[in-house]
Amino acid sequence: MEARPVRHSRCVMTEIVIPNDLNGLGNLLGGRLLHWMDLCAAISAQRHTNRVCVTAAVDFVEFRSPIRQGEIVVLESQVNRAFRTSMEIEVNVWAEDPRTQSRRFCNRAFYTFVAVDETGRPTPIPPVQPETPEEQERYEQAARRRELRLLLSGRLPAEKARKLQASLADLAASASSFPEPNP
Amino acid sequence: MEARPVRHSRCVMTEIVIPNDLNGLGNLLGGRLLHWMDLCAAISAQRHTNRVCVTAAVDFVEFRSPIRQGEIVVLESQVNRAFRTSMEIEVNVWAEDPRTQSRRFCNRAFYTFVAVDETGRPTPIPPVQPETPEEQERYEQAARRRELRLLLSGRLPAEKARKLQASLADLAASASSFPEPNP
Amino acid sequence: MEARPVRHSRCVMTEIVIPNDLNGLGNLLGGRLLHWMDLCAAISAQRHTNRVCVTAAVDFVEFRSPIRQGEIVVLESQVNRAFRTSMEIEVNVWAEDPRTQSRRFCNRAFYTFVAVDETGRPTPIPPVQPETPEEQERYEQAARRRELRLLLSGRLPAEKARKLQASLADLAASASSFPEPNP
Amino acid sequence: MEARPVRHSRCVMTEIVIPNDLNGLGNLLGGRLLHWMDLCAAISAQRHTNRVCVTAAVDFVEFRSPIRQGEIVVLESQVNRAFRTSMEIEVNVWAEDPRTQSRRFCNRAFYTFVAVDETGRPTPIPPVQPETPEEQERYEQAARRRELRLLLSGRLPAEKARKLQASLADLAASASSFPEPNP
Amino acid sequence: MEARPVRHSRCVMTEIVIPNDLNGLGNLLGGRLLHWMDLCAAISAQRHTNRVCVTAAVDFVEFRSPIRQGEIVVLESQVNRAFRTSMEIEVNVWAEDPRTQSRRFCNRAFYTFVAVDETGRPTPIPPVQPETPEEQERYEQAARRRELRLLLSGRLPAEKARKLQASLADLAASASSFPEPNP
Amino acid sequence: MEARPVRHSRCVMTEIVIPNDLNGLGNLLGGRLLHWMDLCAAISAQRHTNRVCVTAAVDFVEFRSPIRQGEIVVLESQVNRAFRTSMEIEVNVWAEDPRTQSRRFCNRAFYTFVAVDETGRPTPIPPVQPETPEEQERYEQAARRRELRLLLSGRLPAEKARKLQASLADLAASASSFPEPNP
Repeated sequence: MEARPVRHSRCVMTEIVIPNDLNGLGNLLGGRLLHWMDLCAAISAQRHTNRVCVTAAVDFVEFRSPIRQGEIVVLESQVNRAFRTSMEIEVNVWAEDPRTQSRRFCNRAFYTFVAVDETGRPTPIPPVQPETPEEQERYEQAARRRELRLLLSGRLPAEKARKLQASLADLAASASSFPEPNP
Repeated sequence: MEARPVRHSRCVMTEIVIPNDLNGLGNLLGGRLLHWMDLCAAISAQRHTNRVCVTAAVDFVEFRSPIRQGEIVVLESQVNRAFRTSMEIEVNVWAEDPRTQSRRFCNRAFYTFVAVDETGRPTPIPPVQPETPEEQERYEQAARRRELRLLLSGRLPAEKARKLQASLADLAASASSFPEPNP
Repeated sequence: MEARPVRHSRCVMTEIVIPNDLNGLGNLLGGRLLHWMDLCAAISAQRHTNRVCVTAAVDFVEFRSPIRQGEIVVLESQVNRAFRTSMEIEVNVWAEDPRTQSRRFCNRAFYTFVAVDETGRPTPIPPVQPETPEEQERYEQAARRRELRLLLSGRLPAEKARKLQASLADLAASASSFPEPNP
Repeated sequence: MEARPVRHSRCVMTEIVIPNDLNGLGNLLGGRLLHWMDLCAAISAQRHTNRVCVTAAVDFVEFRSPIRQGEIVVLESQVNRAFRTSMEIEVNVWAEDPRTQSRRFCNRAFYTFVAVDETGRPTPIPPVQPETPEEQERYEQAARRRELRLLLSGRLPAEKARKLQASLADLAASASSFPEPNP
Repeated sequence: MEARPVRHSRCVMTEIVIPNDLNGLGNLLGGRLLHWMDLCAAISAQRHTNRVCVTAAVDFVEFRSPIRQGEIVVLESQVNRAFRTSMEIEVNVWAEDPRTQSRRFCNRAFYTFVAVDETGRPTPIPPVQPETPEEQERYEQAARRRELRLLLSGRLPAEKARKLQASLADLAASASSFPEPNP
Repeated sequence: MEARPVRHSRCVMTEIVIPNDLNGLGNLLGGRLLHWMDLCAAISAQRHTNRVCVTAAVDFVEFRSPIRQGEIVVLESQVNRAFRTSMEIEVNVWAEDPRTQSRRFCNRAFYTFVAVDETGRPTPIPPVQPETPEEQERYEQAARRRELRLLLSGRLPAEKARKLQASLADLAASASSFPEPNP
C-alpha cells in the first residue's frame, strides 16, 4: 500500500459546551471531552485507511485546564504513524473564550485505532509519510510510545523494549517533552 | 479527616447500548464508553469526598473486547487510594449478552480525580481505609501508578521515582499484572 | 422451565440529573424518572428470561419526594413473580445528596413486562424462586396486584377476583402497606 | 379563582419514533412513551394553572398496541378535573402509520399534577368547567379515580371511600369502561 | 391521483425549550427552531403523500421575536400546494409564556419537500384541494413563491417568471404581505 | 471599531451522521443540517464580534445532494460582510464518503446574525476587511443579498432597492451565480 501524508488524515472539530455536559462548578465533564476526542480521532483513522476503525487504546491523558460554560472547544487530530494494522492518532484540544477569542491549550492525547474489515478482523493499513520536521519527530516518538503501551499491557517483555532503552528518563521524555502545538 | 472504607465509594452503573453510540460495524464507540466510565468514576469520587470532583487524568486504557449492539454494559468503580487532594479511582467494565446472560470483562481504567472547593481550588480529602486483601493490594499499587503518572507528565524526576525502582519490569507489573475482577 | 432466583434478575442503575431533565423549579421531571425506571425494569426482565421483553403495564405510581438538580439517582429492580408469559417487576428509587451522601426513598413502581419471541408474540417464561422472607412476601403480593390490574383493565370479572376477596381494604393493603426498602 | 373550560388546557404533541427509542424488536420503548405523556400532561397542567406543576402520580397504564419504527405518535391531553391543589390530566396516545395514515389507539393514562409556588409548596388552582357531555362524564369519573388513588396510597380509609361504594365492580368501571376517544 | 384537502396534512407540534438549546442570553437557538420546523413540515408532507419526503429547500426565514427559556413552542404546518413531485409546506411558530399563557407569533417559513420512492427518486404526488378563502389565497401565492425559488436557484430564466410579472414590488408582496395567522 | 479580516471568523466543524438524524431512506434530515449550519454560523459571528449573537434570518437554502448514513459532514463558515449591528455569514457544507474520501458539495446558506448586548439589544459590530479577490466578491454580493432580504421582509420599498436595480435577472445572479467553493 502506498504511504499517505499526515495532512491527509487531519481533522478539525469545533464544539460548543452545553449545559448537560457541565459538572456542579460549570466546567466541562472530562468524559464528554474524551468522547469528542475519540470521535475526532476516529475520523482521522477513517481518512487514513478508508476503513471502519475501532479504538484499541488511549494513552495516559492529563486535563491541564478546566473548560468553562460558554467556551468553544477546538479539536485537531492526525495520524502520527501507522504500524501493521494499528495507528497512533494525536488529538490536541484548545478552549476559546468567545468574549476575548484567546485560545488556551487544554489537552493532548494519543489514541490507538485498529482498522477492521467487514467481519471485524484487523486489516493492514497504508504507512504514513511525514513531510515536515515536526511530523518526522512525532513519527519517531510514536514508536517509543508504542513500546510503552505494549510493555504496560504485558505484551512486550521489558528486555525487548529497545527503543525505550530501559530507562525511566526516556519514558518521561517520550510522553511529555515536546512543546505545545500552535493553534 | 477520618479515613473511609473503599466500599463507601463503590458505584454500579448499568447502561444499554443505543444506535447513536455504534460505529459502522454495530460496536459501541470507545468514546461513549470513556464517557460512561468518567461518570461512574465521578460518582465514586463524590461519594468519597462529599465534594465536587474533576477529572485530572486517565491512565492508559486498553479496549479488549468490542461491545455489540443490544448488549448491556455494567460498570463498577471505587476509590483505591486517596492522596492529599487527589484520588485514584478504578473502573471495571463488563458486557452482558442479554440472550445468554454471560458476562465478559471488557475494560479497566484508572482515573485520577481532584476534589475542589466552591472556587474551583483543590481541597484536602479523607484517606482511604482498605478492608480486604484485594483492597490492600490495590492500595499499594495505586502509589506505584501515581509515580508513573507524575513521571510521564514530567512532574517527578526519574531518580526520585523510588517506588518504581527505576525498572521497566515493575512498570509493566504495576499496570497490568493483577487478575480480572469477578463480576 | 427451571425456576430462577430473584437475585438473578436484580439490576442497579445510577444516574445523574442533568439540566435538560429539570422543570422550572430545578427538580427532576417525572417523565424522565419513569423512563429510567422502565429501562431498569427492562433489564431485570431480560435477565430473568433471556428474551426481548416489552412493557405491558405500569401500576399506580406516586412521586413522594422531588429530586433536585445535582442529586444522584439510584434505581434497583428485580422480578417479584412470573406468570405464564408476563412478570411483575418492582423498581425502587432513591435520591442521594452528593454533599451529605444521605439517601432518601423517592419512588416505587410495579411494571408488568411480557417476554416475546422473534415475531413479537408472547412466549412462556421461567418461574421465580423466592429465597428470603421478603422475597416470599413480594411473591404473594404480586398475585393480588395482578388481580387488581386485570380487574381495572376489565379482563377479570369482579366476582372472580378471589385473592382480592372483594374488599377495598385489601386493595389498599396490596399496594402500599409494606415498609420502605433499605438502600 | 374563576373556573376554566377543559379546552383551555388541551395540548397536542406529535413525535417521531427515532432509533434510540427502540427495543430489540424495533418497537418504541414504554419508558420513552411515558416520558412524552408526562411532558404533554405537564403542558396541560401549566395551561390550566399558569404555574409550575409537578407530577404527583400516574395511574395504572396499559400498553395495548406496540408502536413501530417510523410511525408518528400523536398525544392529546387535557385537565379533566381540578381538586384543591392537584388536578387529574388525561393523556391519550395514537400511532399513525405514515404509509396509510391510519391511526390506532395505543394508550391512555391519568396523571396527577400538583401546582407549586416559588418555594415548591402546593398552591390552590382554578376549578375546571366541563362544557360537553363527554367532559362532564370525565369530570365525574375523575372523582372516583381520585378516591381509588387515595385508597391505594393508604391515605383514605376504605370505609370513607363513598364514591367507590365499596364495590370492586365499580372500581373496574371507573378505570376502563368508557369508549376509545376519536382521534 | 385524487386531490386531498389542506386539513388532511395539518400537523401540530408542541415543544418545551430545554437548557441545551439556549444561547448565552437564555434564548432558543435559531438552529433548533429550524430543526423542529423541518420535522413538523416533514410530517405534513408524509400525511399528504403517504411517502417518505425529503427537504428540498427552505425559503428566506426571519426570526421576529426571541423565544425564552421556559416558554412553550407551538408549531403548525400544512401543505399549501402540490406541484408534480414537490409541495410547498407552510410552518408557523408561536411562543407561549407559561405564566400568562399569552401567545405571540414568532416565525413563518415555507419548506419545499419532494416525495421519493424506495430508490430515492422523486415520485408524483396528489394535488391539494383548498377549501377556505385563506387556503385558496395560500394556494395562489405558492405558485409565485415557486417562481421566485426557481429564479433564485438559476433554474428559471427571468423572462419566463410570468407570475412574478418581473416586478420587485410583487416579490416583496409574495413573501411577506399576508397577515399573521390566528393561533 | 477596527475592521477584522474574514479569516478571523472562519470556523470548521466536522460531524458524523448518527441514526437518530436519518429519515426512512437512511438520509440525513434537512432540519439537523440546518441546526449544524446555524451552530457553525453562530461561532463565526462570535469570533467576529466577541459578543453573543442571535440568528436573525436564513436565506433561501437548497438541498442539492442527500447525505447518507455513515458519511462525514464538513461545514465551513465565515462572515462575508458586517453592516451596523448585523452581519452576513456564509456556510458551505460538504459530505465525505469514508470509504473513498471523495467530497461532494451539498449545501450553501447565508445566515444573518445580530450581535446583542447583555440586555439583548442590538449592538454595533466591527466592519469586515476582505483580503482576497474571492472575499471581495462575496463582500459585494452581500450588499445585494441584504437588499433582497429587506425587500422580501417588507422593510425596503422596491424603488429604493438600488443595488438590485429593479431587475429579476440580477436577483437570480445575486443568489446563485458564483461557483462552488473548493473544499
